[in-house]
Amino acid sequence: MTAFDDLMAFQRDTQALGQIAGRLGWDQETMMPRESASQRGEEMAAIEGVLHARRSDPRVGDWLEQIEADDDVAAAQLREIRRSYERAGKVPADLSRRIAQVTSQAQGKWAAARSDEDVASFLPVLEEVVALKREEGQALAGDGDVYDAMVEDYEPGTTGAQIAAIFDAMRPRLVDLRAAVLEMPTPAGLSGTFDESKQMQLTRRLARTFGYDMAHGRVDKAVHPFSSGSGDDVRITTRTSETDPFNCFYSTIHEVGHGAYEQNIDKSFLLTPLGRGVSMGVHESQSRIYENQLGRSRAFTGWLFEQMQEAFGDVGVADADAFYGAVNRVHNGYIRTEADEVQYNLHIMLRFDLERALMAGDLAVGDLEAAWNDRFDSDFGYGVDRPSNGCLQDVHWSVGLFGYFPTYSLGNVYAGCLYQALRTAVPDLDAELAVGETSGATEWLRENLQQHGSLYEPRSIITRASGMEPGPEPLLDYLETKFGALYGL
Amino acid sequence: MTAFDDLMAFQRDTQALGQIAGRLGWDQETMMPRESASQRGEEMAAIEGVLHARRSDPRVGDWLEQIEADDDVAAAQLREIRRSYERAGKVPADLSRRIAQVTSQAQGKWAAARSDEDVASFLPVLEEVVALKREEGQALAGDGDVYDAMVEDYEPGTTGAQIAAIFDAMRPRLVDLRAAVLEMPTPAGLSGTFDESKQMQLTRRLARTFGYDMAHGRVDKAVHPFSSGSGDDVRITTRTSETDPFNCFYSTIHEVGHGAYEQNIDKSFLLTPLGRGVSMGVHESQSRIYENQLGRSRAFTGWLFEQMQEAFGDVGVADADAFYGAVNRVHNGYIRTEADEVQYNLHIMLRFDLERALMAGDLAVGDLEAAWNDRFDSDFGYGVDRPSNGCLQDVHWSVGLFGYFPTYSLGNVYAGCLYQALRTAVPDLDAELAVGETSGATEWLRENLQQHGSLYEPRSIITRASGMEPGPEPLLDYLETKFGALYGL
Repeated sequence: MTAFDDLMAFQRDTQALGQIAGRLGWDQETMMPRESASQRGEEMAAIEGVLHARRSDPRVGDWLEQIEADDDVAAAQLREIRRSYERAGKVPADLSRRIAQVTSQAQGKWAAARSDEDVASFLPVLEEVVALKREEGQALAGDGDVYDAMVEDYEPGTTGAQIAAIFDAMRPRLVDLRAAVLEMPTPAGLSGTFDESKQMQLTRRLARTFGYDMAHGRVDKAVHPFSSGSGDDVRITTRTSETDPFNCFYSTIHEVGHGAYEQNIDKSFLLTPLGRGVSMGVHESQSRIYENQLGRSRAFTGWLFEQMQEAFGDVGVADADAFYGAVNRVHNGYIRTEADEVQYNLHIMLRFDLERALMAGDLAVGDLEAAWNDRFDSDFGYGVDRPSNGCLQDVHWSVGLFGYFPTYSLGNVYAGCLYQALRTAVPDLDAELAVGETSGATEWLRENLQQHGSLYEPRSIITRASGMEPGPEPLLDYLETKFGALYGL
Repeated sequence: MTAFDDLMAFQRDTQALGQIAGRLGWDQETMMPRESASQRGEEMAAIEGVLHARRSDPRVGDWLEQIEADDDVAAAQLREIRRSYERAGKVPADLSRRIAQVTSQAQGKWAAARSDEDVASFLPVLEEVVALKREEGQALAGDGDVYDAMVEDYEPGTTGAQIAAIFDAMRPRLVDLRAAVLEMPTPAGLSGTFDESKQMQLTRRLARTFGYDMAHGRVDKAVHPFSSGSGDDVRITTRTSETDPFNCFYSTIHEVGHGAYEQNIDKSFLLTPLGRGVSMGVHESQSRIYENQLGRSRAFTGWLFEQMQEAFGDVGVADADAFYGAVNRVHNGYIRTEADEVQYNLHIMLRFDLERALMAGDLAVGDLEAAWNDRFDSDFGYGVDRPSNGCLQDVHWSVGLFGYFPTYSLGNVYAGCLYQALRTAVPDLDAELAVGETSGATEWLRENLQQHGSLYEPRSIITRASGMEPGPEPLLDYLETKFGALYGL
């Protein structure tokens, strides 16, 4: 055994334990008995303690000092191991523990404040979270920028300034597109009720249609859809609503994008640091391109319309064109997770600017609600009616996820680049999607992006796969073309 | 923090990690995608490695040297911690690893041999397992008896000689009872087919009827029924067969006995060494008394007959007496897990004598099949027709579980003692069971036995609860009375 073999054997167990922690998270949202949460909290804390000790184990530092990489794969493994080891060494264990404790309380207080529409009751604990996360960010950043250090956790190699430049370029065209679309009549939605067990049957079929491998995964219901796990055991969840079957189907297609990315990684990377999606933004590029560019296309919705008629009978719209309109309705609303393709990124930009100001110390927690409401009014043209539709709508800040929001829009930007390249690589794409055949697209994504796991850094894999430096133009062109045609602009 | 507090905090994390390993086992049998087994094997190995390191951590030895117990509960905690620590220190890590590797292969070879009816293909690996387990037994036993050291893992404080004495006292009366019963006509079984989703509905109702707490547990299907977990998250499984609903219902009631024992342990013991059932025999006493003395009683089966008629309509027997006969049919068969109350313990005695001889070196692995077949013929009066009905029927030896089999019969013996005491303590038991009310019985078991977890040693808790030294007479009296009446002896 060489030192490299020893290090990789150690990492393999660490990855396996990380996979176990993920499996417990899945269980908690899908299977766990309703009064087992407190014991589960202790179980999660125990395995997180084991993981933290392994990530900062001094033997890893010794190995990293001794080892020279023989090839590109080994170099990439060492890069990922070094990143994790150095991060673990920068944050004092006591600070990590306090963050875990405070965010666990804050999540409960956020949920209560949201249902009571009571921002004031949430602010004291949010103040604590912000202070602790700034302390962590300073420990991570050293002489650098605090917010950049936080983004680095989710999107390595991308800075706040780079994101701001992308967003500045997107915003005027999105604002114009939104205004033009909203002046036109809104297409009708579906009507009727849709049996929930039939929704689950069709949703499992959709998962398979998009290449999700049921022999290495499963689809269950959960309150919030998510994908969980890596390698040979990647599970997704969706939800059902009797009156809104699109919620179920597009949640599934979105999560299949995440899940198929994990399932399609080169098996030689299994249970190694390269055997996972490389960043949140690249992950989101997969879920978004599956959900939007493929799943909400005119071609694919034509096929879906037939499947829904077969499953449910009349769905309340006359033909495939009306169905396509119903899938892609643009209308006013407050909630990010319910936003359409045109408006979604405006929600993210709002959060990005506010959380960056919070971390820089330029915005006080006490001024957050007013800042949110002012910005919303100026971006969307109408006021926030209540906190649960405003600054209390998302869980992220309560659990300390600062630097996470912009990766959603980066994912959309990356998806735009990938889709432009995909259209050239698969000229028959629309004809395939029109008969429910996605393998031309999903195979291209597997071959050019997914199989590499974390071998290449985020921006680099997007450039390799799409043949271009990541930028917002392809996404904006796609949105203007699609919604221009749909709304007759 | 005192040294005792430190030790208990360390133990709490160890128990939580053990609970996680159990949860993975549950997932593997109920939810895991069908091709995720190999990755799961690595995950299990990783967490078992963490658990082994914690159980043999030198800090535990230091703490145990420093600490004096202040009270009985602390003394019992230290007793359990010391037992686990000393055991971990006696078996070389390399031997444990080899046993894990060989038994993992052996289980696959056993399954293949059983389906091919090919004993010879299984013997080489069984030879290895027996040699390694004898080596482990010698390491555990020191100057003592190897088999006793193995029983100690499952039934602390009981020796092979004590078990042999109990079995010697039981055997003649069981042989006589069996012979007398089999001379009488066999009652008819149920006939018809029974919808499996209705079976699951009724089985969940039965679980609740026997006091299983669904807010801290759940019931799923699995190939082999089992109970998994401790404290606030205890899950059970059952199985369904369209033609044999008793398999589902009595598997459930049996597993509820195990599960309710774990659920009913004093909450102050949660995630401590006392917060688990104290031994396999005591555990089995709970599953057996729920399943047999309560669940297969004339009183309870009268109520169950009504529930089954409501759920399924005609079940193929005329009245509650005939139904009682169908539940308690005694007939010839080869398979231990399908055996009735009269014959079950004869199956165990056969295995006990053979495995004890294997561990003592008095029986060669190559002679096992012949020894099994001779003994079966002499005990049951007919020959084994094929290996899957003989020495290949049980998984236990392939996975190294020597010393485990006798705890099944000890459980029956303990259940006999408890039932005698319970009849006196709850004089209206039959009237309660006749209306599907089990709480008189289950509350008595909770109060007198289950709540104590591992506070008292196995024989001691049976004596405390039943008021008698454990012995086979109450069980034999119960069996002779029940089957004497049922078969008109």
